[in-house]
Amino acid sequence: MAHSQQTAPFDYVIFGATGDLTMRKLLPALYNQLRVGHVPEEARIIGTARSSLSRDEYIARAREALENFLPEQHKNAELIERFLKKVHYVTLDGTKSDHNWDDLKAVLDQSPADRIRVFYYSTAPQLFEAISENLHRFGFITPQSRVVLEKPIGTDSASAKAINDGVSRFFEENQIFRIDHYLGKETVQDIIALRFANPIFSAVWSAEHIQSIQITAAETVGVEGRAAYYDTSGALRDMIQNHLLQVLSLCAMEPPADLEADSVRDAKVNVLKALRPIPEDKVASETVRAQYVKGELKGKPVPGYLEELGDESHTETYAVMRAYIDTPRWKDVPFYIRTAKRSTKKVSEVIVTFKKSASSLFGTSAASDRLVIRLQPDEGFGLALNIKNPAAAGFDLQHGSMTGKFAPADGSLIPDSYERLMLDAVRGYPALFIRRDEVEAAWAWVEPTLKAWAANKAPMAHYAAGSYGPEEARRFIATTGDAWHEDMAH
Amino acid sequence: MAHSQQTAPFDYVIFGATGDLTMRKLLPALYNQLRVGHVPEEARIIGTARSSLSRDEYIARAREALENFLPEQHKNAELIERFLKKVHYVTLDGTKSDHNWDDLKAVLDQSPADRIRVFYYSTAPQLFEAISENLHRFGFITPQSRVVLEKPIGTDSASAKAINDGVSRFFEENQIFRIDHYLGKETVQDIIALRFANPIFSAVWSAEHIQSIQITAAETVGVEGRAAYYDTSGALRDMIQNHLLQVLSLCAMEPPADLEADSVRDAKVNVLKALRPIPEDKVASETVRAQYVKGELKGKPVPGYLEELGDESHTETYAVMRAYIDTPRWKDVPFYIRTAKRSTKKVSEVIVTFKKSASSLFGTSAASDRLVIRLQPDEGFGLALNIKNPAAAGFDLQHGSMTGKFAPADGSLIPDSYERLMLDAVRGYPALFIRRDEVEAAWAWVEPTLKAWAANKAPMAHYAAGSYGPEEARRFIATTGDAWHEDMAH
Repeated sequence: MAHSQQTAPFDYVIFGATGDLTMRKLLPALYNQLRVGHVPEEARIIGTARSSLSRDEYIARAREALENFLPEQHKNAELIERFLKKVHYVTLDGTKSDHNWDDLKAVLDQSPADRIRVFYYSTAPQLFEAISENLHRFGFITPQSRVVLEKPIGTDSASAKAINDGVSRFFEENQIFRIDHYLGKETVQDIIALRFANPIFSAVWSAEHIQSIQITAAETVGVEGRAAYYDTSGALRDMIQNHLLQVLSLCAMEPPADLEADSVRDAKVNVLKALRPIPEDKVASETVRAQYVKGELKGKPVPGYLEELGDESHTETYAVMRAYIDTPRWKDVPFYIRTAKRSTKKVSEVIVTFKKSASSLFGTSAASDRLVIRLQPDEGFGLALNIKNPAAAGFDLQHGSMTGKFAPADGSLIPDSYERLMLDAVRGYPALFIRRDEVEAAWAWVEPTLKAWAANKAPMAHYAAGSYGPEEARRFIATTGDAWHEDMAH
Repeated sequence: MAHSQQTAPFDYVIFGATGDLTMRKLLPALYNQLRVGHVPEEARIIGTARSSLSRDEYIARAREALENFLPEQHKNAELIERFLKKVHYVTLDGTKSDHNWDDLKAVLDQSPADRIRVFYYSTAPQLFEAISENLHRFGFITPQSRVVLEKPIGTDSASAKAINDGVSRFFEENQIFRIDHYLGKETVQDIIALRFANPIFSAVWSAEHIQSIQITAAETVGVEGRAAYYDTSGALRDMIQNHLLQVLSLCAMEPPADLEADSVRDAKVNVLKALRPIPEDKVASETVRAQYVKGELKGKPVPGYLEELGDESHTETYAVMRAYIDTPRWKDVPFYIRTAKRSTKKVSEVIVTFKKSASSLFGTSAASDRLVIRLQPDEGFGLALNIKNPAAAGFDLQHGSMTGKFAPADGSLIPDSYERLMLDAVRGYPALFIRRDEVEAAWAWVEPTLKAWAANKAPMAHYAAGSYGPEEARRFIATTGDAWHEDMAH
């Protein structure tokens, strides 16, 4: 899969250009890609938002964003100025057909008509259709245009379908780039490399050798400041339906025919479609949901979720689902998908636990081999295995481990996920974006759980803020013979 | 395999007790095993040698040896005195029937008649039969006696058979412990643990997945001071026939039925017997031999072998053999066995190179996965594999690696190989000693090469002291599609 490093010239049109995501992620990502030579000289970034700002005022904000959010070692005064020369701004309400579309046209018309255009919707998803309609109305959607949709794509199957339908009236599916920043993580893509470029792993990647797979995304932060928004979403919608099911798809997919976008996405959607349904009456036994109560983090007391919200709520801040994939490769192998807020530590990781050795040479002293893929932080990988206990007289075993880093060979930082994704949209390479059928298959699988939880058909567990999660989750995983990584002996 | 940690009481009778091996290895090993609680209070060490020494004089030498050769953190003045109280000495020429056998009897008779006795022959192998005969003559060989034979067991099949026959006149095979200190290395035993206690390795441990295995023992030292002795032996006799063929056996053996001594040794000897013969007329193409010439080591000039010897010689200081094992598991997998003196660095290691991925996803950019088992120094293990190049726009790969340590879990030093072996002889557990049929099978396999080399039917290559070896070895391994570990890209 050779992709040219530098893209063709492009105009990146960002809706929601004064927002937090643009400042924290999108502008730093484009700057960094300019820094490493992937952004061509002619490229431009055109911010739009409702705020009435001059170009200079917007550039001042952009400069401040780079100052605040770039890693120190990436800052280069000359390069920052070169980057900011590419930045334009148009005051525009994208949902209103009678707004400043002429201003946007004037900026876009400075480029040749066949210039690649990427419309990046960093707005609420309810606005996607209206913006698309206006882009269409004023003739901005060329054959060289793509649109990037930020999450969430809906809150259930019906709303996801409505959003997809709305955008699809104006863009072809191959022009639509649904972003999932997890797929942009280099470490998530390393799942593909580890699985398919290394025969030692390919050879054992099935139910014959694998006992279970844990996929965890835990964070220490709570919902401070955005409790009201979070309460309409919850852990399942916020993390599992999108990010963690994507990680699961990469862990479980059959080898794709090649690394072209549709080959990879075909392989992924086949996993999502093969997920064994969890009907509403099984939700209580196949999932765990929980809320954090007050606790302690790094020695400081922190409030519980309901205290932060200031209201009653049945929204989960912690969720576990046990998934089975009904294919021969994954016969009866449980996948545990887990996410937590206010956890004891921030960690996203995949833990592949292998079946114990059939060899009886070492009696029962052999533990399960485990492959750890640390997605973030401390990006790296490791193998926990059995070695000989050198202090013993016989052949007793002890736990050994190997660890390695996913760091670039040249010592540079791992690129942020938006860097790769924003430029892949320019390249027209959607392998790391979610196809419509994937979104909808993922919603279809989680929907009975959403419904059962909404109807309180499953108990709400509780865990102290700053802990790994509720005791119920420990009992839950034990019912299928496993233990959470952090509870394992090695 | 539970073996009690502390042995039964024993009398360890060492022949050659004033020699270098006793001072450097045997006494420190017994002290360390006392230190960790494996040596019972009643145990005694009875040194014998021709030197006329009092017990006190010998104890003084032993004290000096412990001072010189124990790791600092293992020294304990009180424990050293406790150890030295166990030490006795008898002036004795073990080959002479009219020598001080009564003195030895007087010491031995202080123990109950059924005390475990280990006779350790740290002498030239030509003396083994005469010593055994005298032990027999004077009634010292009880049912609770064993004998430990130091290497070399002969210099070819015939001399090995003569030595074995000589000792077997007086000891049963299950009383004879032929030492190979490589088998006492914890890291060599880890080959067993890695292979059979870890399904991720068991699953790929065959010709289906393995391309080749390299077994290397290189050292930086030359033959200073003992050139005359070395010149009668050479690299093949000194390292390959014994140590490296034992390592090969552990790497290649079928799973033994259990870890009892004869199960393990049956499995090993089956490998040695399945080695494809290298007839004399194939030696030139299936082996490389070489001598070091003057060169440089750590910035200092060092002389060549012939200069050190001060004579002409056809003795090799470097040897490589390509071995095939004619079993289904190892069909056409080359094992490269290599040893070198005056190499650029000291390292003993096993390199398992896996076949490249059959997946075409990554084109030709995937390298071979490699498992590294570092026997010494820096005892540890690692996997070299393919990960994603995070700097690239596409799915290019880069080299990644995991590494781990074989260190004891409690932070202590890895025990010296003699510690385990000396006490296993007491325990009567000969799994890590070489059975007679193993010695003889190993000699049988190397003998045509010895003969061809002696008859100069293969060229003598040369390498600079301080280099990895001769250019001929690089070309040699390339003929079967491999490269030496140090020459590999990753």
